[in-house]
Formats: sequence, structure tokens, C-alpha cells
Amino acid sequence: MRKTHPTSINFITDNLISEFSLIDRFFKRQTTNPSVAQGIGDDCALLSMPNGYELAITTDTMVENVHFFADCNPFDLGHKLLAVNLSDLASMGAKPLAVTLALTLPKVDENWLQAFADGFFALAERYSVDLIGGDTTSGSLTLTVTALGLVPTGQALRRSTAKPGDIICVTGHLGDAGLGLKINQGYDCKQPDAALKRFNQPDPQVAFGQALIGIANACIDISDGLVGDLGHILQQSQVGASIEWESLPLSEEVLNYIEDTGDWAMPLTAGDDYELCFTVSPDKVKNLTIPHTKIGVIESLPGIQLNKSGIIQSLEVKSFEHFS
Amino acid sequence: MRKTHPTSINFITDNLISEFSLIDRFFKRQTTNPSVAQGIGDDCALLSMPNGYELAITTDTMVENVHFFADCNPFDLGHKLLAVNLSDLASMGAKPLAVTLALTLPKVDENWLQAFADGFFALAERYSVDLIGGDTTSGSLTLTVTALGLVPTGQALRRSTAKPGDIICVTGHLGDAGLGLKINQGYDCKQPDAALKRFNQPDPQVAFGQALIGIANACIDISDGLVGDLGHILQQSQVGASIEWESLPLSEEVLNYIEDTGDWAMPLTAGDDYELCFTVSPDKVKNLTIPHTKIGVIESLPGIQLNKSGIIQSLEVKSFEHFS
Repeated sequence: MRKTHPTSINFITDNLISEFSLIDRFFKRQTTNPSVAQGIGDDCALLSMPNGYELAITTDTMVENVHFFADCNPFDLGHKLLAVNLSDLASMGAKPLAVTLALTLPKVDENWLQAFADGFFALAERYSVDLIGGDTTSGSLTLTVTALGLVPTGQALRRSTAKPGDIICVTGHLGDAGLGLKINQGYDCKQPDAALKRFNQPDPQVAFGQALIGIANACIDISDGLVGDLGHILQQSQVGASIEWESLPLSEEVLNYIEDTGDWAMPLTAGDDYELCFTVSPDKVKNLTIPHTKIGVIESLPGIQLNKSGIIQSLEVKSFEHFS
Repeated sequence: MRKTHPTSINFITDNLISEFSLIDRFFKRQTTNPSVAQGIGDDCALLSMPNGYELAITTDTMVENVHFFADCNPFDLGHKLLAVNLSDLASMGAKPLAVTLALTLPKVDENWLQAFADGFFALAERYSVDLIGGDTTSGSLTLTVTALGLVPTGQALRRSTAKPGDIICVTGHLGDAGLGLKINQGYDCKQPDAALKRFNQPDPQVAFGQALIGIANACIDISDGLVGDLGHILQQSQVGASIEWESLPLSEEVLNYIEDTGDWAMPLTAGDDYELCFTVSPDKVKNLTIPHTKIGVIESLPGIQLNKSGIIQSLEVKSFEHFS
């Protein structure tokens, strides 16, 4: 026999009215891609796919006190979180289409959220990327984006397809973001603005990645430093490389930093540049339409041989251990 | 003028050798879907899309001490993290295809990771879902899955398309997972196993969702309790509902719990059942091929009217506030 019930009840469910208002207020924008059949607002987003394309998918997480500090400018953080994911799309030659955003927040700080969203959408709009879904939860500040892009079927740029004899090229300058980090850590740079901008608001090389389709044999984005990322191409392609230190594209500020400190390895190892490193067979170099610098050659034997001022040395690649 | 350099250097990059070994060891499996052109191992995964389908995309995060406790069985956690995402696909009528996994871990506990992966893949294999990418970072335990599925173009089940006169139906039983939570919190249930299993290892209604395509007018999965989730359908469809409490499908254990405690509202409000709530026009009810229970009717006027033992009351829906 069932008990009687009170005449009025407030139904407290595990659902988030505040989640809806958060998303509505800060993250729900008109979508721009005709492929987006359903954006934020249902259990799933829906995308239609044009013929002749594959979908490229990547996920990157940024964690407070690991990837950024608590006092990080939220505009920069919104930019950078999206940029690191678009950079992965760029490295495959994919055109960005849409992203989801999983936000774990310790509290609701409306000024913080507005600035974060402003930074996120300023970059999203530049590349016509629609935010199509997400989740907001409470916890330590942890931010995950999953990015979706389109790449012509069978033509994505891989890590595993570099060939001996390929010319190794990079876009842009190396080490600027690394210098930005050094400046944040106290290095006294006379012209700090450009390096800080590169560190805080990296530009994903979206157009350059797409322009390499059909030309480059292999490609990766330089998120973890040239040596580490080129190392992935070498490992997966089962080849090696020789690199000329004097060929590295370095800004005046980075050259000054090296002269000041002797830390010539910084542009080889510092992360966060988000330039592209790619390999091209010599007969296709003439087809390159994007600004680039040739820094070395793919070799048959494994390992990286660095030539610096005529002294050749083998580079040993060790990686930062998150969990040591 | 540049400084001389040491003759041997260990290049420490910001990259994760341990991330690769973690992923290789626990999360890299042979993919099973022919649509997966590239799985784990490059900057992006690549999916080809069959003609006539849209891609359904959803993201859900689970956070320690918010969605589960630190002593949660990792096998169950791996299962549940995937299940909640597959349930979102099911609620749109999508067939699961692939997922990405973003794992933020406070430390590497190999036994924990193995059990988590076992739970995750046991469910993934049941539905031929490929894990195609992800990210591992260090931080407070936070788990995000983005799930991708296929749904026939234009036929996805929405929240916004319920119509006055539709019959409201649910799959399975309501409140079993809620009872599981009560048992975890100390309620003395004589037959606890089924309820605990429903709470710890919910079954996403993947096949049922797909079977509702072309029949149901609207659908949602019951993750946050019947009243809250039905409320989303009502709000987005701009309709109301009347529900018969005596029609709710309740297990013997839930009926016993209500008799013990008087808490008859529990099966209306408890989350985590991951059954489907859907609406069907009366002339299509005969086409339903899946087990279901009719619990009410869609009304023109907004709000939910509950009839319990002949007493009719309006339900006020309030939501759990993560950020209050």
C-alpha cells in the first residue's frame, strides 16, 4: 500500500538549469556552416558531410597549473584552447568545421567566462568554426575541446609518410613562444610583445596546412618542440633526419636571447609555437606556395643529426613526463 | 656571436613519452569500423562517412567527487563514462561509430587504468565503437568522452518535435538506478544486486533508439530523471504533459522502497536510468517494435500534471545547481 504524498513538491533533479543559462549566455551563437544541421540544444549535434571529404577529429585538454596558471588571462586561454586543436586539424591539412567544448569549472565567475568566451569566439569566427555542443561540470579547472574538420578523402597529411631525401621545412619562426615563456618566467627581453603574443595567442596554421595537400609527404604541428615533433614523423615513417642549426628561422629576439644566455637549444625544444613541420620531395619544393624555411633533409638511418657550426652531434630525444 | 654548446644534450620536450606508452598499453586497440580511415596515432583521426547519413556528436564529462567517488570501481567507471555518451546517441536514434577519450589523471595507477580500460572496452565492443583518439593529462580526475554516431539524414529524433495528443512512453523501468544510489547511501534493500548494477553499469538503449526512427515524434534519454528530461521535450516542443503515476514502470524493489519510505517521487526525479522517454502519435503506436510503457499524454498547455491515485497536481521542475 502506498503512502500519501505532500500536496506540493519541488522536484530537484540532477540536471543543470544553470548549465543551460551558462551555455545560452556565453556559448550559444548562431552557427555559420551549412553542414551544421543541429547545434547546441539537443542530446547531440548533427553534421552533414559533403561528398569527397573525410572527417578529421582531434581532442586536446588544458589543465590549470599544468598547461596554464590560475592567473592566466581568460581571453588568451579561450584563444589558446581552440588554437591548439585547430593546429592539429591544420597539421593534417583539414579545414576546421566545428568543435565541442567540455568546461569543468570550480565556480561561475561571469567576468572570467565572458572573457574566455570572447577569446574563444574571436578565433572561432576567424575560421568559421561553429561550437556545436559541450558539457559544463563543476570541479578543478579543466578544459577539453574536440575539433572536427574536413579533408579531401585520402589526402590527409600524415606523420608516417616521410621519405628519405625529402626536404624538411617549417613555417614561421621557431622559439618565439618559448621565449614568451622565458619572459613570463623572468627573462628580461627588450622587445617582449611579439614573443608574449606568440605564447599567449598562438596562430594555428590553418590555411598553410590546407595548402600543403598534394605537395607535402608528411606533416605535424610543432606543439611540443621541433625535435620532439619531428621525432614523431621520423619514428612513424621509420626514417631519420639531418638538421642545420644555422638554417633555423629565428626572430631577432630569439637570437638575442641565445646570445645572452647561450641556450641555443631552446628553439629546438621549446613548445607552443604551433608552426607546421613538413617534408617535401625535392621535385615538389617548387610547388610550395606558402612561406617556409628549409631546415634539413630526411635520411634513411634513424635518429637526428644536428649540424651546428660544422660540429655534428646526435640528438637524443627525451620527453617531458607528466606522470613521473 | 653565438656561444659554444655542450657535446651531449638530453632534449627534454613538453611531449609525453609516457602518454604514448599509456595509450599504447591501455587504449590502443584494433579498430573495427571500415569508416575509420585513421585511428589513434596521428594528429587527428579520420572518418569516412557513408552516403545518406548525418553525424551525431555528443560530449559528456565525469568528475571525481561530483559524478562519482574516489573509491568508485574503475571497471564500472569506464563502462558508465562510455554508456552516458552512447545514451545521448541513442536518444537521437544514432548508431554509435567512434569516440575520443580525454583522461585527466592525478597519477598513473596501472591496475586502475587496466580495470577502467576493461570496463570501457567491454561496452565499446558490444556496440562496435572504436576509440579513435584522445588526450592524457595530469590533474584532478576528470574524464571526457566525445561520441560520434550515424543517423539517417533528416531523421534524427529531436526534443523539439513532440505534438499535443502524442502518447508518452518510456523503455525499461524507472528509478532502479536511483534505488542503487540509495543503497550506496545506506538504504537496506533485500535484493540490491539489480539496482546496483543499473546504477553502476547502465545500459544505453542503443538498439531501441534506432528502432524509434520514423515512429517517435520526440525522444530524450533519462539521465537526470523523468520529470527533468521530459521537461526538456516539453520546453523545446512548447507543449505540456499529463502523467499517470500508477502507469510508471517500477521494479518490485523500487515498489518496496516506496512502501518502506513513502518516497514515491523518487522514480520521477532520480537520474542515471538511461532509459528513453519518447512521444508517439496515437496512430503510430501500433508500429512500435520495442518494449515500452505508456505513461501519459502530451498536452497543449505547458507544465506537467501528475495524476496519482486520482489526485492531480502540477509538478514544478527545479534543477540541481552545480554552481550555487
